[in-house]
Amino acid sequence: MRQYEHKVQYYETDKMGIVHHSNYIRWMEEARVDFLEQIGWGFDKLESFGIVSPVTAVTCAYKASTVFPEIISIFVTVEEFKGVRLKLKYEMRKADNTLACEGHSEHCFLDADGRVVRLKKEYPEFYEVLVSLAK
Amino acid sequence: MRQYEHKVQYYETDKMGIVHHSNYIRWMEEARVDFLEQIGWGFDKLESFGIVSPVTAVTCAYKASTVFPEIISIFVTVEEFKGVRLKLKYEMRKADNTLACEGHSEHCFLDADGRVVRLKKEYPEFYEVLVSLAK
Amino acid sequence: MRQYEHKVQYYETDKMGIVHHSNYIRWMEEARVDFLEQIGWGFDKLESFGIVSPVTAVTCAYKASTVFPEIISIFVTVEEFKGVRLKLKYEMRKADNTLACEGHSEHCFLDADGRVVRLKKEYPEFYEVLVSLAK
Amino acid sequence: MRQYEHKVQYYETDKMGIVHHSNYIRWMEEARVDFLEQIGWGFDKLESFGIVSPVTAVTCAYKASTVFPEIISIFVTVEEFKGVRLKLKYEMRKADNTLACEGHSEHCFLDADGRVVRLKKEYPEFYEVLVSLAK
Repeated sequence: MRQYEHKVQYYETDKMGIVHHSNYIRWMEEARVDFLEQIGWGFDKLESFGIVSPVTAVTCAYKASTVFPEIISIFVTVEEFKGVRLKLKYEMRKADNTLACEGHSEHCFLDADGRVVRLKKEYPEFYEVLVSLAK
Repeated sequence: MRQYEHKVQYYETDKMGIVHHSNYIRWMEEARVDFLEQIGWGFDKLESFGIVSPVTAVTCAYKASTVFPEIISIFVTVEEFKGVRLKLKYEMRKADNTLACEGHSEHCFLDADGRVVRLKKEYPEFYEVLVSLAK
Repeated sequence: MRQYEHKVQYYETDKMGIVHHSNYIRWMEEARVDFLEQIGWGFDKLESFGIVSPVTAVTCAYKASTVFPEIISIFVTVEEFKGVRLKLKYEMRKADNTLACEGHSEHCFLDADGRVVRLKKEYPEFYEVLVSLAK
Repeated sequence: MRQYEHKVQYYETDKMGIVHHSNYIRWMEEARVDFLEQIGWGFDKLESFGIVSPVTAVTCAYKASTVFPEIISIFVTVEEFKGVRLKLKYEMRKADNTLACEGHSEHCFLDADGRVVRLKKEYPEFYEVLVSLAK
C-alpha cells in the first residue's frame, strides 16, 4: 500500500500557530478514501452499490504538532475486520519520520435502507481483501 | 429584524491569531438561516416544500479583524428581490460597533427537479415578505 | 454546571445528509471553552497568564446521527485530574435525550516556553476547582 | 504558470450532495499558496521576511456545482497590481473544462508592525514579478 500525503493548508492552522487538532480527523478520511481506492473499493464504487460506510468511532493521539506548509505522510492499516466492523489505524508522520499523530477509526457498512451489509455474503471480494489486510 | 450573534470559536482562528477569512462566509449562512426563520420561512419549511436555495455568488470585504472569543453581531438585509434572484447584505459588527466585514450573497430557489421556482405564483406569501423587505 | 448548546449548522452537514463526524471534535472544543468560562478559568484568562492548553488526545463514539438544524446539548465532566493531565468527558444529547455522541479529550497545561505548568503550585485555585470537579 | 489541482474531499460536501460553497474560498487560498511558491515567493519566504499578506476582499461566482471525489483545476492570474494592492483571479474548472467557479481575492502586504510594505522599494524583485504577471 502506498502512503497518503497531505500538505498542511494555511486555513488548517489555529492561533497557536500549529494545525488545529480537529483537522487530523479529516486527514484520516482523506487517507481512508485513498486507501479504499487503492484496494479497488473506492467510495464511488461503494455508493454505486448503494453502500455507505459511516464512522462509528474515532480516536486521535497527538504526538507532535504540525505546521503550514509541511507535508504529512499517512499510513493506513487494517487493525481488525471479522466481517462487520472495520477498524483502521492511521500513522501520520512528518518528513523526518517523527510520529505526529496516531489515529483509529471504526466503520460499518450499511445499505440504502440502513441495514448492515454482510460483506462475506454480499460482496465476498471486498470481504476477502479486508480480511487479508487485517492479518 | 433581530440581529444574529456569532461567538468566535477557537477553531476559527488561524496562525495570524485572527479569524480565518473563510469563516465569514459560514457566518453569513448562519445569519441567513436565522433570518429566514425570523421571517417565517426557515430552511426546514422550505425543504418540506421541496425547495432548495443554493448560493450563486458571495462577496466579502474585510474591514477589521476579529478574534477569539469575541461576539460578532450580524445584520441581514434584503438588498434586491424582484421574484427570482435574492440578494442579501450582511453587516458584521464588533461589540464597539466597528464594522468587521461587509458581505453579500445571491440565491435562487429551485424545486426538486432543479427548476427555478417562481415565488410570486407558487409561494405568494414568501414572495410578499421578501419584496416588502427589499424596499 | 450548565450544559452547552450547539445549534447544528448547514455547513456542518455532509452528503449523507447528516452532520459530518469531524464537527463533533469542534463541538467538544466549544463546550470546553464554555466549561472553563463557567468555572472561572476561561481561555482568555489562561492566555493572560501565558498558559496554553493543547489537546493531547481525543476519542469520539458516534451513537446517533444529528441533522440540521437541531440543537445538541453537551454535558462536560472532569473524568480525571491529578495535577498534570486533564481528562474531560462529553455527552452530546438530542432534544429527546438520545445520546448522539460520547467524547473524551485529554489536555496538559504549558507555559510560554512550552514547559508543563504545575497547577497545584502555580495556580492552586484552578487546581482545586479541577480536583473537586474530578470527584 | 502551472494550474493547481484540488481533489474534492468527502468532508467538503453538504446535505445537497455537492461541495459547500464556503470551501471554494479555501481552495482559492490553496491555489494562491501554490501560485506564490511557483513565482518564488512562497508564504514561508514571505514570513521569513516578516511579511504577512491578509485577504482584504473575496468574491465567488458559482457556475456549476462540484462533487466528491472529482478533481478541480484552478488557474490563478494577477488581475491588477500597481504596488500596494494585489488582485488575483481564480478560474476553477471541472475535468471537462466546465467553469465551476470564478473567484477574486484582494491582498495587501504588511510588516510585523502592521504597516503596509512598499514592495517596489523594499522587495523590488517580488514587485517586478507581480507587475509583469499583471500585464
